[in-house]
Amino acid sequence: MNLTSSVTNQLKIKYPIFQAGMAGSTSPELVAAVSNSGGLGIIGAGYFNAEQLEQHIQEVKMLTSRPFAVNLFVPGNQEVVTEQVMHMNAWLKPYRRAFNLEEPVLNIQEQTQFESAIEIVIAQSVPIVTFTFGVPEKDLIDKLHRHNITVVGTATSVEEAIENERAGLDMVVAQGSEAGGHRGSFLQTSGQYGALVGTMSLVPQIVDNVTIPVIAAGGIMDARGVVASLILGAEAVQMGTAFLTCIESNANDLLKNAIFNSAETDTVITKAFSGKPARGIDNEFIHNMQRYDDEIPAYPIQNELTNAIRKKAAQLGDAEMTHLWSGQTPRLAQSIAASQLMSQIITDTQNILQNE
Amino acid sequence: MNLTSSVTNQLKIKYPIFQAGMAGSTSPELVAAVSNSGGLGIIGAGYFNAEQLEQHIQEVKMLTSRPFAVNLFVPGNQEVVTEQVMHMNAWLKPYRRAFNLEEPVLNIQEQTQFESAIEIVIAQSVPIVTFTFGVPEKDLIDKLHRHNITVVGTATSVEEAIENERAGLDMVVAQGSEAGGHRGSFLQTSGQYGALVGTMSLVPQIVDNVTIPVIAAGGIMDARGVVASLILGAEAVQMGTAFLTCIESNANDLLKNAIFNSAETDTVITKAFSGKPARGIDNEFIHNMQRYDDEIPAYPIQNELTNAIRKKAAQLGDAEMTHLWSGQTPRLAQSIAASQLMSQIITDTQNILQNE
Repeated sequence: MNLTSSVTNQLKIKYPIFQAGMAGSTSPELVAAVSNSGGLGIIGAGYFNAEQLEQHIQEVKMLTSRPFAVNLFVPGNQEVVTEQVMHMNAWLKPYRRAFNLEEPVLNIQEQTQFESAIEIVIAQSVPIVTFTFGVPEKDLIDKLHRHNITVVGTATSVEEAIENERAGLDMVVAQGSEAGGHRGSFLQTSGQYGALVGTMSLVPQIVDNVTIPVIAAGGIMDARGVVASLILGAEAVQMGTAFLTCIESNANDLLKNAIFNSAETDTVITKAFSGKPARGIDNEFIHNMQRYDDEIPAYPIQNELTNAIRKKAAQLGDAEMTHLWSGQTPRLAQSIAASQLMSQIITDTQNILQNE
Repeated sequence: MNLTSSVTNQLKIKYPIFQAGMAGSTSPELVAAVSNSGGLGIIGAGYFNAEQLEQHIQEVKMLTSRPFAVNLFVPGNQEVVTEQVMHMNAWLKPYRRAFNLEEPVLNIQEQTQFESAIEIVIAQSVPIVTFTFGVPEKDLIDKLHRHNITVVGTATSVEEAIENERAGLDMVVAQGSEAGGHRGSFLQTSGQYGALVGTMSLVPQIVDNVTIPVIAAGGIMDARGVVASLILGAEAVQMGTAFLTCIESNANDLLKNAIFNSAETDTVITKAFSGKPARGIDNEFIHNMQRYDDEIPAYPIQNELTNAIRKKAAQLGDAEMTHLWSGQTPRLAQSIAASQLMSQIITDTQNILQNE
């Protein structure tokens, strides 16, 4: 076994390692460092407007000539349900008062931002786009393909992976339940948080049921996880938390320190911050919201309703009132440069493979 | 890397593969077949009285001269809370009426059974005992050690693994959230079901924090999972569901067929059947119990309250009213002899290792 595969060949990267496109936490420096190290840096563009995305792409291009990707959220186009919003605003009122904040005016730009983002990645010749929260329409995938853009999707179950392949995506990230941040689920399950299948279970079952290459994600932090994932049948891995705590990441010190100081049992899945299930370190905001007796407004409405609270809390160093996305392997998180992490992982991976 | 390790050396087995001691589902034929194939067959003795345990041990000894183990449940000695029992009996009344069953008389023999079981494994020179639901008292571990019995524990978190080592256990099974059947958790967490950490995350973090050998469990069904686990730092693996569907297993066809026909997203964690969290295929009994508005009586009280319902339902082929324990990798379940499964896994494992 070696590290080249259809993933590295098709994406023209040296090593089968993706740095997850963590919306709000990636920086051009991080993305470029990963790509310059032979992996695939991914701009976490889920929350960006057109200007932010253009700027990030240009800054990445100044720092690397290697391939990189952009991650986008497939719009859900959820209706704003006025009673839900009123009810949530009442719940959030004391939080806002504590931080001296007004009730926000909702300004949902989800569809518009998505469409601009597509135009931008095409205009900027970004070679790879990764999608979360659903599969894009066939027309869109065809359009991206006509512009020689490789399209990568996300699946949290075998059915979702099959859906990705059927829709024409070129590759799929198999996101195990260990993964930090937003769950990429888009098909209904009996559970309220979508499919929560561990990486050890999920990867071989998806590999056996699709023909497109599979990228494993969820709990992978070092060479052990990389090689284990390749053994399970993945052709590459995607790491989030591992890069989130790197020096170049855009995550604030509050979040990085929370990860460094947490145990593998400290995370929960919650819709409290954004309206979509996401894994993060448990805290007061999440805990309190468990008593909320109505539907939490869907993403991106809840995300907008809590945004100012979260930002202010983070600025003030209040870890109880902001989102602390993290996977289930925080004990392996390191505070090093991304290039150093890549170099460690690649060396260790090669050692493991030589000793087989 | 090869398949010998301190686990195979200390237990005197050829291959680092344990067949999980699944209470109620193991048979002497299954246990012996695994041991005869070079793995470690484990008698699932958690529910056995003294006579049942003696008989099983003797039958296994007639079928194999290789090492085998017995799995026991560390007693929790939970109080019977009369109001809880009355309330639950009221809830279960319609179920019992449907199956023509009387209200059972509780006869909790947990501690007595455990103590007899210890005497029996010593008297019968069983070489290895595995424990779930807690760490045994130091005196007990010392006693087992004096009789040259290797003691293996279970952990669902790093803290629990450290506790196992501190208590003097020789090895620890790291049980990831993918695992089917009862969760081996014994330390409190903020979640109601104990630690639920995926195998990909759990194994390396436990390996890094204990010096005793670690056996990986949770979602492992074939050589890919075996080798992946060894790469993550485990020195052996324990498989449950993979052996549950083998021909020799004592699981009824209802359960085996439910597993063959289920997807990886069909399981949930529930206390409904036994009072302890366990992973099984979702069904009506579990679903209804989610509306129950009181504390479910602790194990083994709930287990006794629902026992007759579950047995009758299984006899009548009613999959909605009995427990259907399964891990998260049902798509890889096979209906073959255990010796054939072992031979497949060993051959495939050796192939993977040669191709590294």
